[in-house]
Amino acid sequence: MSAIKIGLFGLGTVGAGIVEVIAKARNANAEIKRICVRDKNKKRKTDVNPTIITDRREDVFNDPEINLIVEVIDDPEAAYEIACEALKRRIPVVSGSKAMIAKNLPNLIELQRKYDTALLYDASACGSIPVIRNLEEYYDNDLLLEVKGILNGSSNYILSRVFDHNESYADALARAQKLGFAESDPSFDIEGFDSLFKLVIITVHALGVYVSPDDVFTYGISNISDCDISYAKEKRMKIKLVAQVIKISESRFTMFVMPQFVAPSRYIYSVDDEYNGIVIRGECYDRQFMFGKGAGSLPTASSILSDVMARLHDYRYEYKKMSYTGRPSYTTDLSLKVYIRYQMTPIIELLPFTKINERYNSEKFNYVIGEISLSDLIKNRNVLHVDDVFLVNLPTFFEDNE
Amino acid sequence: MSAIKIGLFGLGTVGAGIVEVIAKARNANAEIKRICVRDKNKKRKTDVNPTIITDRREDVFNDPEINLIVEVIDDPEAAYEIACEALKRRIPVVSGSKAMIAKNLPNLIELQRKYDTALLYDASACGSIPVIRNLEEYYDNDLLLEVKGILNGSSNYILSRVFDHNESYADALARAQKLGFAESDPSFDIEGFDSLFKLVIITVHALGVYVSPDDVFTYGISNISDCDISYAKEKRMKIKLVAQVIKISESRFTMFVMPQFVAPSRYIYSVDDEYNGIVIRGECYDRQFMFGKGAGSLPTASSILSDVMARLHDYRYEYKKMSYTGRPSYTTDLSLKVYIRYQMTPIIELLPFTKINERYNSEKFNYVIGEISLSDLIKNRNVLHVDDVFLVNLPTFFEDNE
Repeated sequence: MSAIKIGLFGLGTVGAGIVEVIAKARNANAEIKRICVRDKNKKRKTDVNPTIITDRREDVFNDPEINLIVEVIDDPEAAYEIACEALKRRIPVVSGSKAMIAKNLPNLIELQRKYDTALLYDASACGSIPVIRNLEEYYDNDLLLEVKGILNGSSNYILSRVFDHNESYADALARAQKLGFAESDPSFDIEGFDSLFKLVIITVHALGVYVSPDDVFTYGISNISDCDISYAKEKRMKIKLVAQVIKISESRFTMFVMPQFVAPSRYIYSVDDEYNGIVIRGECYDRQFMFGKGAGSLPTASSILSDVMARLHDYRYEYKKMSYTGRPSYTTDLSLKVYIRYQMTPIIELLPFTKINERYNSEKFNYVIGEISLSDLIKNRNVLHVDDVFLVNLPTFFEDNE
Repeated sequence: MSAIKIGLFGLGTVGAGIVEVIAKARNANAEIKRICVRDKNKKRKTDVNPTIITDRREDVFNDPEINLIVEVIDDPEAAYEIACEALKRRIPVVSGSKAMIAKNLPNLIELQRKYDTALLYDASACGSIPVIRNLEEYYDNDLLLEVKGILNGSSNYILSRVFDHNESYADALARAQKLGFAESDPSFDIEGFDSLFKLVIITVHALGVYVSPDDVFTYGISNISDCDISYAKEKRMKIKLVAQVIKISESRFTMFVMPQFVAPSRYIYSVDDEYNGIVIRGECYDRQFMFGKGAGSLPTASSILSDVMARLHDYRYEYKKMSYTGRPSYTTDLSLKVYIRYQMTPIIELLPFTKINERYNSEKFNYVIGEISLSDLIKNRNVLHVDDVFLVNLPTFFEDNE
């Protein structure tokens, strides 16, 4: 490709960032030819020639000069339609829609193969941190053992206000919403789904296996209480929302999104505020740690720019690991050690612990530390999502020390 | 390339690691066909079929099956001969020899173009941290402003023993040598040349400009004394050996290797022991931080493996940024603020400071903090390398806060 003519879908926060970043990148050889938005007449702060704005998808698809679709809209269904339509027309796509990609990756890979074209989405996982590209190209071997990280900036910002600035959870959430870190419906970030979608994408590029988001245990931070916060602080730990994919043997791996107690010696302990941080662990190189801004208009847009420029050289993901021999298979058949705090719910009766390590009861709150299989946690999701219950993983149980 | 048949030069620490890593990488489709060593009869711990070992270069070059040369010998002149010979025969090369590459990069780029073949060397800069590949492919745009890092594990280990474990410099150096982190002649690490060579390579891929190592101000840590260490500790800072390339305007950049005072708020403050850490700063994504093992047998070998596997897909560096319009040019014409400690040498008389900010004199030691141009530091290298003098950069002078 000698020059890139972009058809851009979406002119929200990230879309506006893309306009700004493409203008700065003098050597990118890229130009935004058309922009498709929901409401053509909306007043916009971004300085864009109004004649290139349209509200009809076909104006973009039928422009013969456009050779790349960039899609950054916040509606996963519409995003999927746009991506499919573009791929079927053999127009490569750069996307930042993690939910759309995580839910539809097998189909999207099939479409890329069938129509011999490319879908790039490094911006969908951890904004400006090049995690997908590095897993696909640099850690493209059998040595990889684990990818673990703080993948959601909003929930991390809230926990950071709580643990580093001694705010209450409610105040921290309100502050995050005020700053625009958390949506007015914050459940996508707070309940772990944003981290989950990123983890599903990462796992495809880390181990070559697609696991449906529905099959992954995902537990957010909305039920955290002052009791849990005090407990963690007494132990000199922080609670972080951690997404993790890990090989537990040569042939099996597991994955989940859960709050974890994190000790100061761990890399992710110091990933504060709205930052993201990822630890990539391998057999011979030990641990690599990458850290940066995971979200926001310009960081996400600069990641989109990297994908756009990769198309100058016809780059595409090869999904090499999906054809590797000896790919590990996904399992939830493993034991975890967890802390579960509860008030009224009779947790110990309701959950099939294989071992109880500690019990604590008081007038204020109760907790149990015990061993339980991941599959039993999945089966008993309902019990764990009751208002007076909060779960935290004790990851040292099956991990080496960092 | 469907299967990789490697001709390996060197079976020292890294070479033995490569043998181990290639054996583990079942899906790499790579095999070590021949190994060329200096002394064929040397007893080796590595389990290698002795019939593939040779001491004659031509046995490797003349093997028609060999389609990749991996070169990890510790003699830069011989390494250069091998790389040139291979490239002229259109055999791609993977190398870990930073000194060889940093000194000869313009010629090596020319040979790659002339003979339409590839030289990869991600292992040469920071072992397992994929810095070259990311600068070349992911940060391949005009947004990059700065790359700064701790690029040498041995000197960092020594400083870490001093600042984190309260050892004396002499004890720390001895411990590093005992552990094999520092060579018996440690000047390559300690005087900053290892960091310098890595910085020269990084700068080519960061800004598209080659600067000869001879033209870069390089100052190591061998003259550090207890006075400097106490001074830093009093200010709640550490001294780190930092390599840095930074745009100081749209059209100009500078680079140097120097000890720096580093405050706890900086990312590189917590890069301890033998680790490397790199901060990549850009206009829109702010700061990215990468952290990992920068040296050692297996970390370096796993980086070599990444380059080997990249050849499966015919990957090569395009040196795109070298043809960008508006490339910045190298300058040493800028003012730095430095701390210089001295005993007898009359530093204030000998150096053309443009401003003196602080002076301190005592029976034990003296120091001056002043402003001086980088070009004047280069001109007065001799004065600075006198035994009783030690220089530390105060980088906040021309940088934003991190």
